[in-house]
Amino acid sequence: MKKICIMGLGYIGLPTAVVAAEHGFEVIGYDIDAQRVERINNFDPVIDEPEVYERLKPLIESKKLQATTQIKTADCFIIAVPTPFKEEKKADLSYVFHATKAIVPVLKHGDVVIIESTIPVGTTNQCAQLLEEETGMKAGKDFFVAHCPERVLPGKIFFELIYNARIIGGINQASMNEAKLFYKKFVKGSLYLTNATAAEMVKLVENSSRDVAIAFANQVASMAYSIGLDPFEIIELANKHPRVKLLNPSCGVGGHCIAVDPWFLIETFPEQSKLLHAARTINDQKPHQVVACVESWVEEFKKNNGKNPTVLALGLTFKADVNDLRESPALEIARTLAKKENISLLLCEPHVETTVVQSLINKPNVSLHNGVDAADIIVCLVHHTSFKELDRESLQGKKILDFCGLFYHPQTETDQQEQLFWPANSLSNITPFDPQLTELLNTYKEQYS
Amino acid sequence: MKKICIMGLGYIGLPTAVVAAEHGFEVIGYDIDAQRVERINNFDPVIDEPEVYERLKPLIESKKLQATTQIKTADCFIIAVPTPFKEEKKADLSYVFHATKAIVPVLKHGDVVIIESTIPVGTTNQCAQLLEEETGMKAGKDFFVAHCPERVLPGKIFFELIYNARIIGGINQASMNEAKLFYKKFVKGSLYLTNATAAEMVKLVENSSRDVAIAFANQVASMAYSIGLDPFEIIELANKHPRVKLLNPSCGVGGHCIAVDPWFLIETFPEQSKLLHAARTINDQKPHQVVACVESWVEEFKKNNGKNPTVLALGLTFKADVNDLRESPALEIARTLAKKENISLLLCEPHVETTVVQSLINKPNVSLHNGVDAADIIVCLVHHTSFKELDRESLQGKKILDFCGLFYHPQTETDQQEQLFWPANSLSNITPFDPQLTELLNTYKEQYS
Repeated sequence: MKKICIMGLGYIGLPTAVVAAEHGFEVIGYDIDAQRVERINNFDPVIDEPEVYERLKPLIESKKLQATTQIKTADCFIIAVPTPFKEEKKADLSYVFHATKAIVPVLKHGDVVIIESTIPVGTTNQCAQLLEEETGMKAGKDFFVAHCPERVLPGKIFFELIYNARIIGGINQASMNEAKLFYKKFVKGSLYLTNATAAEMVKLVENSSRDVAIAFANQVASMAYSIGLDPFEIIELANKHPRVKLLNPSCGVGGHCIAVDPWFLIETFPEQSKLLHAARTINDQKPHQVVACVESWVEEFKKNNGKNPTVLALGLTFKADVNDLRESPALEIARTLAKKENISLLLCEPHVETTVVQSLINKPNVSLHNGVDAADIIVCLVHHTSFKELDRESLQGKKILDFCGLFYHPQTETDQQEQLFWPANSLSNITPFDPQLTELLNTYKEQYS
Repeated sequence: MKKICIMGLGYIGLPTAVVAAEHGFEVIGYDIDAQRVERINNFDPVIDEPEVYERLKPLIESKKLQATTQIKTADCFIIAVPTPFKEEKKADLSYVFHATKAIVPVLKHGDVVIIESTIPVGTTNQCAQLLEEETGMKAGKDFFVAHCPERVLPGKIFFELIYNARIIGGINQASMNEAKLFYKKFVKGSLYLTNATAAEMVKLVENSSRDVAIAFANQVASMAYSIGLDPFEIIELANKHPRVKLLNPSCGVGGHCIAVDPWFLIETFPEQSKLLHAARTINDQKPHQVVACVESWVEEFKKNNGKNPTVLALGLTFKADVNDLRESPALEIARTLAKKENISLLLCEPHVETTVVQSLINKPNVSLHNGVDAADIIVCLVHHTSFKELDRESLQGKKILDFCGLFYHPQTETDQQEQLFWPANSLSNITPFDPQLTELLNTYKEQYS
């Protein structure tokens, strides 16, 4: 196995191509997007991930890695194309099947085809069958097909490509063993060898479990807000239990994995996935709840001040400290707020270029301090590290709706045995879902004080 | 604070009484069950927990701890009574209110009342109000009321009473600080000080998160079985992901906490607890699914052998290596199977006395080896350590339905980078949910081999 063809040069494909080339493989990067291919050949990192530029440049210069729109012969094909879903929440496998078909003209005896894209259970076998039908060769014997799902964390991709354990699932044992030869060259984590169906399911289960954990946190948030408690405090306290580790609530679930992959299991197992369906529904509804909450405070402001408020939306990306806007609930929320006539909206997203922001939402993308100065209501959507420099004093007199725990400061662990959670972290000017709750909360606080 | 009255001498109250007495408090153990009180005063440990007898005896002998059915004056009252639920899944608070009322005649200025029982949000304030009404004193001022939920693991109670972090929630700050004085005497873990409502919610959230995690595992099991995969293998592989930690599936959720507490949140927050409701429904249905699966294999056996099978149920307790049968799904399953006319049922529960087993289910409680010898179908319900001595050879020719992973041997971590999960751990004679799946599974396996 000398020559590797990576199909799809995105967040997974490009770093994998880089790592493979660094480990002595001759690498072809195949993508149908001619502009992207040209940019990569001119050392443009294309994706927002540390180290890409520095590592890509010498490989392109030395021709160890070449991007192209033309399929070429290779010993191993790695499919790393997107698998979004269609309107009706069914997996859109057109990219995977397109890539599989692209291999047909160049597939030769002994070649290995590995799908890294996240796919519904059974897809690897379907791709194998497709290649059999189109080439007349026998899958698992004349050529080999496996699924090895990617598991990397954006921002740490190069580290995790090397050190994470990998699941390698072949359509048969020969395929599993052939696929292994590729990963053995650079993976330092363990390689777990299994069948393709198990590998498909494992990956979907991993991401679905995270979706359920986030939905649980969002349910805790809804419960806590409804009685005037701070959900971030409840979760921090619950996590002091030796066997509990909850995630934090957020303004919704974004990105192209966790908000998508559970649907692939729901599609295949409609009767066995009620919990996943409930979780997906809860997380999908969260941005709408956030909008409704903001609107109720906008009305409250207008009632008290006789004018429409200036609202600042803090953060638009799908998670903290990245520039990735894919399936971002914060973006969805800001877009909805931008359409409201009773809101004068400001955006603050330091990780995305202003021109990009304005092409998506035609509202000013301001600096943190200018935004805070001008705002009556501050809606915290993404907890970018740079937002944490805000001190509470600059927020005096403003209504803060903190959906991501930006203003929640977990108690630092000290040597002291006692830690006070009351009233330091209770909801002061920070966000109950319903303005009427402030009153309720005060009643409750005074009841026995 | 010198004299402590512990109300309710069960799994929480008795060990707490022991620890309090060991740390210099004069302890009265109050219980309405005269027989239980007498047994305790005669050094009978009453509960199945290591160390109780050895630690209880010297305390009773030296009168540092005295059990009684008569309420006495004390400086601090700890309520540790059960909170089951009623038919309609509402919390039954009669024990808590009964205990609270019992305090009324002896409550004096400066006394502290602490509820350790798991209770719905708002209950601590209700108890405070009840005491105010009945005594004419002011809660939070004349006397103090707090909630400090227990968090101990049966089997490790004495260790966890000392070393776990505790959440102490007062109805006001004075109550919080007074309650703290009790725990400071013996808790070495951190004390987190908050309000009663937060403390109530934290505890319910902790247990509900576990219920949801188990429901997720049970959903994975249903999905995996339906396509002939081993769910224990899928979960082990998913847990090789650096940020995933799934629990294992089981035959259902038992005990008096995890199967009960989520209902307390659902009762208070019906609109914000859809995920918890879905999880509870899934876990409640699991025993019925297990029975249906056993029945389908009983039919299969009869079809192939022309006679009814002998079925061995392995384990009846609510979890492994304990004798506790409370809310046990395994017991519920065995009871249902015992009523089937086409099943000759044997039970094997080494942790519970045979007379107790037979009083619950009138079927023979046999030894492991006799049971396995006689059985045609072995239904694994609880993974007691003692069951693991069974070797696969003694199971030749028997149908094994393993619902608790008794026969799943996780791969031991080795120095080797590669680990094979195929076909070593795939479902051989072990349990798909539907007999027709065996055929499907074989088809699948042979497809590319």
